[in-house]
Amino acid sequence: MQIEIICTGDEVLTGKIVNTNFSYITQKLEDVGLGVRWGTTIGDDRETLLAAFLHAAERADAVIVNGGLGPTVDDLSQEIAARAAGVELVLSEDWLGRMEEFFRRRSRVMSPNNKKQAMLPATAEILDNPIGTACGFAMDIGQARFFFTPGVPRELRRMLEEQIIPRLLARSGAPTAIRLKRFHSYGLGESHVDALLAGVEELVSDGSAKLGFRAHYPQIETKVTVRGANDDDIARKLSPVIAEIRKRLGNFILAEDDDTLEGVILDRLAATQGSLAVVEMYTSGLIASRLAPLPGAEAVFRRGLVSRDLGEIQAALGPAAGADAEVTKEAAENVAKAMRRASRASHALAVLIDLDEGPDRIDFGGTICIGIATEGETESRRSRILGGREWVRLGAVELGLDCLRRFLFGLPVAERIDFERN
Amino acid sequence: MQIEIICTGDEVLTGKIVNTNFSYITQKLEDVGLGVRWGTTIGDDRETLLAAFLHAAERADAVIVNGGLGPTVDDLSQEIAARAAGVELVLSEDWLGRMEEFFRRRSRVMSPNNKKQAMLPATAEILDNPIGTACGFAMDIGQARFFFTPGVPRELRRMLEEQIIPRLLARSGAPTAIRLKRFHSYGLGESHVDALLAGVEELVSDGSAKLGFRAHYPQIETKVTVRGANDDDIARKLSPVIAEIRKRLGNFILAEDDDTLEGVILDRLAATQGSLAVVEMYTSGLIASRLAPLPGAEAVFRRGLVSRDLGEIQAALGPAAGADAEVTKEAAENVAKAMRRASRASHALAVLIDLDEGPDRIDFGGTICIGIATEGETESRRSRILGGREWVRLGAVELGLDCLRRFLFGLPVAERIDFERN
Repeated sequence: MQIEIICTGDEVLTGKIVNTNFSYITQKLEDVGLGVRWGTTIGDDRETLLAAFLHAAERADAVIVNGGLGPTVDDLSQEIAARAAGVELVLSEDWLGRMEEFFRRRSRVMSPNNKKQAMLPATAEILDNPIGTACGFAMDIGQARFFFTPGVPRELRRMLEEQIIPRLLARSGAPTAIRLKRFHSYGLGESHVDALLAGVEELVSDGSAKLGFRAHYPQIETKVTVRGANDDDIARKLSPVIAEIRKRLGNFILAEDDDTLEGVILDRLAATQGSLAVVEMYTSGLIASRLAPLPGAEAVFRRGLVSRDLGEIQAALGPAAGADAEVTKEAAENVAKAMRRASRASHALAVLIDLDEGPDRIDFGGTICIGIATEGETESRRSRILGGREWVRLGAVELGLDCLRRFLFGLPVAERIDFERN
Repeated sequence: MQIEIICTGDEVLTGKIVNTNFSYITQKLEDVGLGVRWGTTIGDDRETLLAAFLHAAERADAVIVNGGLGPTVDDLSQEIAARAAGVELVLSEDWLGRMEEFFRRRSRVMSPNNKKQAMLPATAEILDNPIGTACGFAMDIGQARFFFTPGVPRELRRMLEEQIIPRLLARSGAPTAIRLKRFHSYGLGESHVDALLAGVEELVSDGSAKLGFRAHYPQIETKVTVRGANDDDIARKLSPVIAEIRKRLGNFILAEDDDTLEGVILDRLAATQGSLAVVEMYTSGLIASRLAPLPGAEAVFRRGLVSRDLGEIQAALGPAAGADAEVTKEAAENVAKAMRRASRASHALAVLIDLDEGPDRIDFGGTICIGIATEGETESRRSRILGGREWVRLGAVELGLDCLRRFLFGLPVAERIDFERN
């Protein structure tokens, strides 16, 4: 099935906003095994919209149009859809009623121009939007089925998932029962993960398992989709694949599905009535900002201390923090121990960095020393990361959090990662 | 002049990476008064590429193609460009020599498949890429001039600015001398800024001044472009516009051009041999992470303290921090004073937040109390922001930094902003 996406709107076309809806849609379709072949971005202009709709109507089997369903004069999707299909715009009493209800529930008055949002092409099938006033709809133009979606990301996301993907899967003829399983890892590069997982797809003999990756430094996401006749069939096929991926990526898997590294750490600490204090140098608060704002973190995240200067950290924590002049594993352990005592947290993490001198450049690096302390234990590791100031900083945030995860789960803290140099 | 952009690559098409190059290109063109009419996104597939090139060649005067110039087999731009124009691919000895030099300077060996990057359509004009091995080039296909650019963002950016925009401006027939002036503000919504600046364009009587906005919450960027016969002409026209914008937006302008809020604060502190300590609650390290990693900040940013709990902050700072049980202006002042003394910094900023209870929602809010202390002075303000957990957090970061900027420059710290509620 040939699928195209048309993103509309002057703000997207002129770069006022970065078009994250496009990558969201294509990714979600990829996740269920539907490939997108062509993307078009155009402004709020009648002739251009019409040309884009007609082009896509000739080439594609299905077209997702994003944007242009709002109440203002530059929202043109319904009008041009009707023109492209050669049908009239008709007031949908159904949608008008839902909009009136929408405003009533929020004790707001519907402005007259909202009525425009209920004017739909005569042949349109409504796609429900339970969280907004923009009416999604589907209709045929030329040989293609068009799906019109709102530009507001959360409305688009819900409509895509609940309304559009099931319809696309039904049209594609592929088994519509499909499941996506995701693994998040840190410390292995994409090609390394790819190599480690060679042959995993073949564990499902009918070819219905598909493996994919998405790198967002420093993490790699590994995705597996499996299709089947029904949920039981899928669960049966997926089970050995999941077991094998867990075995091969082992300690490097930091979370699965919607879980996150910081969420896993927080949950583990909460489950053991633990608490955490953090000392940061060049990561400068990014570690704290991953953990501390999470719901529930107020009971776990006790305290964070940030300074670019080791002496200042020692001054803040008092004599127990030691007087090491250099960033070393020992210095990191001493700082973590002192922070734990000062904050009365069950765990303390210190991420110290000795940054290279000179201007930013591709081989600019930093030496990272991580210390973890509990009442009875300390742990540390040293690592060197190259790749520019921001690369080092982001790498150190992830390394620090991942060392803490490993410590909390009893895994080796100092396992070698692909990103470090000697 | 009709301009189109074609972005190529499976990673962009499948949403593996968000296409920031597209918005970068269109924005840069908008900044010099060149509008883009049509954007196309396609994968690394010969037939699709050819179709996209031929479509654009019929419709447009100029086309910028991004990606597909690399050394691997899925990099197809040169090959398909040659096919679309009906010319041969020819080895460019010129570019091959430059590539060899590129590798020599970096003491690296050029792999044989890099040679592919020097195979160019026979009619191509080289567009220099001083920082990479992908050769940019320009050529005619159909009625349009095509500009082929690398997918690596920093290579694209430099080529666009130095090679392509001057050529496009020359082709457009518009006066090629143009200047972009930017103002960054915080505290006024986009429509408010727009209303405040009504009529400013008309200060340039020949219509060569153009105003635009870009909102990236919580900041708004105001852009003015002016065209002219030469630099003097532009400077003469721009001067009253700049003066008027500064007057109308006044204290809300936090920085101009490439300057940033955090950079302005850092520079001001550095210029007065000042130093800074920060206390954060729900912003959780984001304020520290804006300031502390900047080059030069090691001499200015002294210490940051993060905790979700006011009592914990007071415990960390000792009796001088007071014993206020609630987040108030007084509590913020007390905390700032104690932090300043503990860190021996010249300035301390405390951003305390009393967050609403319950699940995240659109009217979820927080009450923000900001305290600033120097040896002889204290200042504070209270503000309430609604809009969900992340919205409150990002708003509080900006509000805290902006209050500090205002304090450092002797401006009123408590001026009302559009984002706050009572």
